[in-house]
Amino acid sequence: MKISDLDTPAVIVDTAIAERNLAKAQAYADAHGLPLRPHIKTHKLPKWAKRQIELGAVGITCQKVGEAEVMADAGITDIFLPYNIIGAAKLDRLAALHQRIALSVTADSAATVDGYAGRFTDDAHPLPVLVEVDTGAGRCGVGTPEDVVALAKQIDAAPGLRFDGVMTYPPHGKTAAVNAALGAIKDALTSAGLPPRQISNGGSPDFDRVHEVTNATEHRPGTYIYHDRMQVGAGRGALTDCALTVLATVVSRPAPDRAVLDAGSKALAMDASGHPDFPGHGHLVEYPGAVIISLSEEHGVVDLSACASKPEIGDRVRVIPNHVCVVSNLFDTVHLVSGDDVTETLPVAARGRLG
Amino acid sequence: MKISDLDTPAVIVDTAIAERNLAKAQAYADAHGLPLRPHIKTHKLPKWAKRQIELGAVGITCQKVGEAEVMADAGITDIFLPYNIIGAAKLDRLAALHQRIALSVTADSAATVDGYAGRFTDDAHPLPVLVEVDTGAGRCGVGTPEDVVALAKQIDAAPGLRFDGVMTYPPHGKTAAVNAALGAIKDALTSAGLPPRQISNGGSPDFDRVHEVTNATEHRPGTYIYHDRMQVGAGRGALTDCALTVLATVVSRPAPDRAVLDAGSKALAMDASGHPDFPGHGHLVEYPGAVIISLSEEHGVVDLSACASKPEIGDRVRVIPNHVCVVSNLFDTVHLVSGDDVTETLPVAARGRLG
Repeated sequence: MKISDLDTPAVIVDTAIAERNLAKAQAYADAHGLPLRPHIKTHKLPKWAKRQIELGAVGITCQKVGEAEVMADAGITDIFLPYNIIGAAKLDRLAALHQRIALSVTADSAATVDGYAGRFTDDAHPLPVLVEVDTGAGRCGVGTPEDVVALAKQIDAAPGLRFDGVMTYPPHGKTAAVNAALGAIKDALTSAGLPPRQISNGGSPDFDRVHEVTNATEHRPGTYIYHDRMQVGAGRGALTDCALTVLATVVSRPAPDRAVLDAGSKALAMDASGHPDFPGHGHLVEYPGAVIISLSEEHGVVDLSACASKPEIGDRVRVIPNHVCVVSNLFDTVHLVSGDDVTETLPVAARGRLG
Repeated sequence: MKISDLDTPAVIVDTAIAERNLAKAQAYADAHGLPLRPHIKTHKLPKWAKRQIELGAVGITCQKVGEAEVMADAGITDIFLPYNIIGAAKLDRLAALHQRIALSVTADSAATVDGYAGRFTDDAHPLPVLVEVDTGAGRCGVGTPEDVVALAKQIDAAPGLRFDGVMTYPPHGKTAAVNAALGAIKDALTSAGLPPRQISNGGSPDFDRVHEVTNATEHRPGTYIYHDRMQVGAGRGALTDCALTVLATVVSRPAPDRAVLDAGSKALAMDASGHPDFPGHGHLVEYPGAVIISLSEEHGVVDLSACASKPEIGDRVRVIPNHVCVVSNLFDTVHLVSGDDVTETLPVAARGRLG
């Protein structure tokens, strides 16, 4: 099958570009002796998770229990969940996973640790728990070394839990500050008699510099496999490194400088690129001067005023999305392509796993 | 089952509120003699589509062929597609639907009409086609009465097509201008010997005033069944009219004025409310002063600084989303509730139908 045989909108992934991104990242990590634990949220596909491990990753990262279940079912045996798992229903599912694979989880509060300690009681097979620390991103995580030590002690004291270390999702562009913060926490834990086995760092935007975070023992990149406009805007790679595009059809040309695509917010999502050089809702590969100025659910309105040539109704375009991870979540299937050939069509197995 | 038995995040729909919204809208339409053709994009559920027809709707509106297929499979027999259907694959599916139900479609270009005319050739069973007109929204649609007449003539001349009239998706707050534009088009078509059977108007934001669009023969509201923050911001209804909420759990309280929910952009979507009085990414029913200041895919970060009481880790909240239609598309199932009881759990049958 050819790309031209696909109906639109469709997600296509250029396998050669994705493989190049994976190989480059693994080579960088290997050169710096930094183990990778890729986050599967970007692709949500067992095929790529297995490939990441085949290339050298020590395991994978999933954000939700449902994603971990899909990946465990597919044969992945080492999964980290950088998330506070709360409530009896999810703790039961976590316990079932813990029987099947090497699983580790996260806590940033005594309440979360209490939940784990109440459900996991087997000191012969403890659940590894990492403490989430806020190194400046202002999302989850405890802030001070004292608070980290207190939680580490609580975990260490619970028979069915094992304190494994700390994890963070860092702010962009602050590698030195992140490393310093992690160093202070490492020192405090070591002084308290609880040296961290793992110091897990994350994120793709600063991936070229994470070797500077020398206190980290592993890194969890996600978007690096596909790249997107947000990454390029953040200084990571070029548009030609973007492996995933949304194939769309021009369905209307209501004005000389306006085209409308059959890809709206249900296909491209509303996430902004975050960079003034990358306006609008995606990059049209064939019409680099075009700007997707607005999205409704099923329509993408394109301003063609800066385009020398302009598409006609029925023409197809490929759109590099602003944020590729959310696009993976919007499609039930993804097509892997090589040149113009569709080589494989896969269900997005971990799509929509919210819990 | 009780709402408290549901795992989070989950979509819950208060049936009594939705029924009240439907009844009020149908009563308004009946009072003005304006037939309703509800857009199912908001709920994506055959159950509600059937209920809308039971209450008096003349048929339904679907945006994509895939949505129409789901609704036809569920027994709906009159569907309008306000969309340019382009390409052989979709035209074949359209032809199959045309054999099963009363189907009508849309065109805003000669190219789109050519596509229909090439696939539909049976003059004993012609496909009804409406011309899309741009009444100021700047998306799809032809702009001048002359262009509408030209397309109407092209449709009328095709043996397998029947010119049925015009449709528009209007700009917000411009009912008088929309009515005038539709009147001029109606006059031009009548003068050309092609008086429109249908003049189909759409949208929920101005739904309380669409009786002023006296030239319209039907109206296609979508969001009115559930309402959302965007509608309330546009002056339609109150937050207490919002039937759909996202049930979420507080998973972190990393700072005195910060909570983090297990509902991020994968559950609430990034759509803005469009109104300065409705900041952030949704309204917390139990904490009206709270502001969801940022979303990542699985985290919603909440600023509690304006809240007198604050939630603890493990507490549950209900979030009224900014844009409810896109939330329906993000969940595989929806729970109908009555008070604290979950009365029914339904698959979102028309979710993810992009083509």
